[in-house]
Amino acid sequence: MHQQIKNIAILGSTGSIGTQSLEVISANPSLFKASVLTAQANVELLIEQALAFQPDVVVIADESKYPALKEALKSTNIEVKAGMEALCEVVTQSKTDIVLTALVGFAGLKPTIAAIKAGKNIALANKETLVVAGELVTALAKENGVKILPVDSEHSAIFQCLVGEESAIEKIYLTASGGPFRGKDIAFLSEVTKQQALKHPNWVMGAKITIDSASLMNKGLEVIEAKWLFNLEANQIDVIVHPQSVIHSIIQFEDGSMKAQMGLPDMKLPIQYALTHPHRLKNDFKRFNFLDYPSLTFEQPNSKIFRNLALAFEALNKGGNMPCILNAANEVVVAEFLNEQIGFLQMSEVIETCMAKLDFVAQPSLEDYFETDKQTRIFAKELVTNI
Amino acid sequence: MHQQIKNIAILGSTGSIGTQSLEVISANPSLFKASVLTAQANVELLIEQALAFQPDVVVIADESKYPALKEALKSTNIEVKAGMEALCEVVTQSKTDIVLTALVGFAGLKPTIAAIKAGKNIALANKETLVVAGELVTALAKENGVKILPVDSEHSAIFQCLVGEESAIEKIYLTASGGPFRGKDIAFLSEVTKQQALKHPNWVMGAKITIDSASLMNKGLEVIEAKWLFNLEANQIDVIVHPQSVIHSIIQFEDGSMKAQMGLPDMKLPIQYALTHPHRLKNDFKRFNFLDYPSLTFEQPNSKIFRNLALAFEALNKGGNMPCILNAANEVVVAEFLNEQIGFLQMSEVIETCMAKLDFVAQPSLEDYFETDKQTRIFAKELVTNI
Repeated sequence: MHQQIKNIAILGSTGSIGTQSLEVISANPSLFKASVLTAQANVELLIEQALAFQPDVVVIADESKYPALKEALKSTNIEVKAGMEALCEVVTQSKTDIVLTALVGFAGLKPTIAAIKAGKNIALANKETLVVAGELVTALAKENGVKILPVDSEHSAIFQCLVGEESAIEKIYLTASGGPFRGKDIAFLSEVTKQQALKHPNWVMGAKITIDSASLMNKGLEVIEAKWLFNLEANQIDVIVHPQSVIHSIIQFEDGSMKAQMGLPDMKLPIQYALTHPHRLKNDFKRFNFLDYPSLTFEQPNSKIFRNLALAFEALNKGGNMPCILNAANEVVVAEFLNEQIGFLQMSEVIETCMAKLDFVAQPSLEDYFETDKQTRIFAKELVTNI
Repeated sequence: MHQQIKNIAILGSTGSIGTQSLEVISANPSLFKASVLTAQANVELLIEQALAFQPDVVVIADESKYPALKEALKSTNIEVKAGMEALCEVVTQSKTDIVLTALVGFAGLKPTIAAIKAGKNIALANKETLVVAGELVTALAKENGVKILPVDSEHSAIFQCLVGEESAIEKIYLTASGGPFRGKDIAFLSEVTKQQALKHPNWVMGAKITIDSASLMNKGLEVIEAKWLFNLEANQIDVIVHPQSVIHSIIQFEDGSMKAQMGLPDMKLPIQYALTHPHRLKNDFKRFNFLDYPSLTFEQPNSKIFRNLALAFEALNKGGNMPCILNAANEVVVAEFLNEQIGFLQMSEVIETCMAKLDFVAQPSLEDYFETDKQTRIFAKELVTNI
């Protein structure tokens, strides 16, 4: 069923999704080849990966790391590049079949658009691309006959449950673990540290998404991502807290029937599915056992305490550049929280102020998104400084 | 999408599945017509249904009820017939698109085979057909290009989860409510009455299947049914007790990914799906709400106490006419339990003795099944008499 080897370009190969993608690829050398590897700044790991996987090209986004990379790979045939422009160029490489976008944040937008314009199918792990510019990106994908294959476990779940179905979607339920602070009150949250926020109960992930999970912003971004991936209205998307992270999401069809995709929390499965869709590939990932999970529980998220979720719905309903404002402000506050410059609850405050104060653009162009992102970052940083 | 009206022959229209099927049909008069209605003996309800739905033909299996039926419908254009032969004849009626087999027990085998031979798609609610003669029936269906569309909620769940999937099935989990006696011990079960056994916690069903649910034989029969519907080995089928009856069953693919079909316990949904597959049809059935089910629980069935489940797996592993023996003995003991001739636990004892004592036939013909069924009933009744 998989006759030709698929060449995969991994943007962000040194991150959590990137390294797990390489695990999937190395387990199936007859099916996949990592043809392009890129990293933001982790040159040591990128060198190690390049030597192990022998891609055609590697790119380091941080140009100051170029000499070290070039030097380390000088005795190989691997082409070595640096910078954002190189990133946008390598995704168009003719032999690439799938571009797996595992870089973090708004930085994913440009190379993803470049890949779509080059007709490459996208395995999307960079949800911010759709959060910021979902309308534009999905239109472009349609125009170029490009598939957007979700890698997020929740969206992969919905995507898997949609296979073979032609029914209208009535509703989807995105499940949320609730993060490390589920059930905590405002007093508790006002005191939490970065170390506490970085301890996710079920998933091992990068720092940015782990903080987003603790603040429920990750779920908010996923709501917006789901809107664009599955062409839904905001009122068709519900979030349900499911602390065991076993049911990855649920879809309800127009006959009322619901399908859920389940399994142990392991990102390798949705990564593999994005690479093999519509096929599945036998593997030896650990299997789920009901007896290890005698009770699967569900509760409503508390968006009065975890305000980011309400802000994300607000941005989705407002449309235009509002999700872009939400995302840019969030990227700033998460970085500042990780730098211990602001408290956990202050993150939502800054985001909310940005959404209220930045210029709203109802029908933004690509340039407008870049401008909004830039202005929001400047404003959000000012707000943080004045806290 | 449904351009032509589908003519449905309902075998067993006066039972629980039959009446719910008529509800689905009457809600969608532009899509479905009940062209044939048949009943075992409930002539009053059959007359009422015939007058309401104006089928082409009605059949009463119990010939003694024929005069009453004939008299009541004399001023209509509805053809009136009686007896098993008539039942096997009406399913071949040329305009029928789907034969919905909702009659109870071994009696379903003959008309189902007649319908398959006439090339009719089968909406299968009579699981005993596949339990008794699964190999023969599925081969015949294949030969005649006939679809077997499961109506049982568990099998419909697996069937729905298989849509669009080409992956090998690694495993299925059939969920079981556990029935009214879940968690009870032998001492308790030795004293239970027919009234207690008839009170199912989640599903309103006919008497035979309700007793089968209380004894876990229903799940045992479903395991054998699943084997034939989905072409599985016994070790690929697991039973998990899920008292809320919200997850209707689960499939695990070869990549470890699992899909579950969920919803409120309402047989109208799987009935409708069998009639519309591969499409779905918008309806106003009550929707599931996670907040009404904050906890979905799972536990291992106790097949030491509920021995029927172990006996069913034994019959499945043994093959040949053993499932036929199991089923015939079960039909006898359930009737005798409902007649208050034997106790709850004695049902399994009689079945086990029948499985040990009746002649085993490794490669039974259709005639062998009828002979096995007959001999088992005689022997089981003797055993009951001597208790």
